[in-house]
Formats: sequence, structure tokens, C-alpha cells
Amino acid sequence: MDLRTQNVSKYFKHDGQFEWNHITPADYKPTDDSWKGVSRRVFVGETGESPLFHLRYFEVEPGGYTTLEQHMHEHVVTVMRGTGTAVVGCKEFEMGFGDVLYVSPDDPHQFKNEGTEPFGFMCIVNAERDRPRLANMAFCPICE
Amino acid sequence: MDLRTQNVSKYFKHDGQFEWNHITPADYKPTDDSWKGVSRRVFVGETGESPLFHLRYFEVEPGGYTTLEQHMHEHVVTVMRGTGTAVVGCKEFEMGFGDVLYVSPDDPHQFKNEGTEPFGFMCIVNAERDRPRLANMAFCPICE
Repeated sequence: MDLRTQNVSKYFKHDGQFEWNHITPADYKPTDDSWKGVSRRVFVGETGESPLFHLRYFEVEPGGYTTLEQHMHEHVVTVMRGTGTAVVGCKEFEMGFGDVLYVSPDDPHQFKNEGTEPFGFMCIVNAERDRPRLANMAFCPICE
Repeated sequence: MDLRTQNVSKYFKHDGQFEWNHITPADYKPTDDSWKGVSRRVFVGETGESPLFHLRYFEVEPGGYTTLEQHMHEHVVTVMRGTGTAVVGCKEFEMGFGDVLYVSPDDPHQFKNEGTEPFGFMCIVNAERDRPRLANMAFCPICE
């Protein structure tokens, strides 16, 4: 039995350079032109764990950005590395280490790295969640 | 209307010293002799947010420790500050910045700070969860 895929306690050791044991980086999404230079690491949610949430680490390289999207499930983001910009509706936040952002249901959002160092953050989502769609910025629920 | 208690997007800025805007530190639990020197800060879960999980930051001062306890709800912990020891059943992990620990259902666990700097970590739990009970280490599910 491979314990890595069972619902047992698991320890993911950080190597000091934003890689972890037992964690393999993957692309953020299938390639399309809505995003650039983003990698994804999943700690909890795809290997047998039972919580009602998943924990992932995303890293945006300099010049990169995530899809400007919206969905009914919430995000909670904590910055671990570097600095970047969070777009939430009509607002922008310059985020750095330790900053926490809650994105409420259906708010359009995007993470961008306009700096020179990688921008990395933990992101929590509900285990069961709806599919993201491209944001409609003409109807921003924050700006309305 | 106080937006801080509504289900809207929220940004918690870290001050560089492990305090955040809009976040007031509280005791970890009512005082008893099962724990020592632990503070608790809640980002998501007690002020109107809708996710199926809560996000809290706990800080254990040098010489402090959390209750050695167990419960059916899971923990996911990410270290943000300092170093400390995680006890999970019969195992101990020396944790530092960026390390991630998943504690599966009913595993006895405790966090201790035997160092000289504060030990701080983010901890995610299901929004609906059972009440912790003192750990019965005679029946550790890991050691069995």
C-alpha cells in the first residue's frame, strides 16, 4: 500500500527553495492564452485526504499571470514568496509575505507578477467546487 | 453595514511582525493546564465568510505548547514563523518555514516550541467540526 495516496497524516518538508518532498510541480492549467508562467503544487486534496478543502501552492514567474476568472467557490490565499498583484474586481492589492486575501463568491480575480522574483502563494478552496469561467468585468460585483 | 462581517472579499495586510490589519489576537482556548503560551488569530470563518473551511494563525511562544488532543476533523498546517515540534501519534517532526503537515482524522497531535523564537503557523480546518478531546496515547492509530 502506498501511504502517499491514503488518508493518513503526511509531512511535506520544504527545501528552502519552494520545493517540497513528495510534491511534484505541475502546470497551473492546460495551456491557453489566458495565463502565463504559473505552476501548481497540490498538498492536500488529490491523494486520498478527507477534508472538505484542498490546499495548493501556486507560483507565478516574473511576467506571469493567472487567468482573470470568476466562480462561485471562494479562494483564501496566503503569500509565501516574493510580491505580486491581486486583482479583485475593480481593486488591486500589492501583496507580499504573510498577506492573506479572501476572494468571496463570484468576484472576478487574477494574480500577476510584475516583479523580478517568483511570486508564490498558498491557495485554499472547497473540495467540491464549480468550474471557473472567464471574468466578465463589465459586471464587477464590487464596482457595482 | 460593517463590511468586515459580511461575505465580501477581504484583504488582511501583514505588518512584517505577524500581526495583520483587521485581526485581533485572542487566546487559543479558555485557560487550563493542557496548553501554554498560544495565541490565535482568525482570518476566515468567524466574520460572515462562506467557505466550508476556516483559516486561523496560531503562535506558540518559546516554552509553549498546544493541547495534546485528537478529533475526527483534519488539520492542515503551514509554518510561517520560527521552528517547532509537531507531535503526531508516536512521531515527532521538527518543522520550519514552509513545511506543511496534514493531520488525518483522530490522530493525536500537539505543537510545541522548545526554541527561543515564536513558532507560528497557519491552520486550516473544516468549518463544521467535532470538539477536540484529550489524546489517548495508549491507543495511537499510527503506532498500532
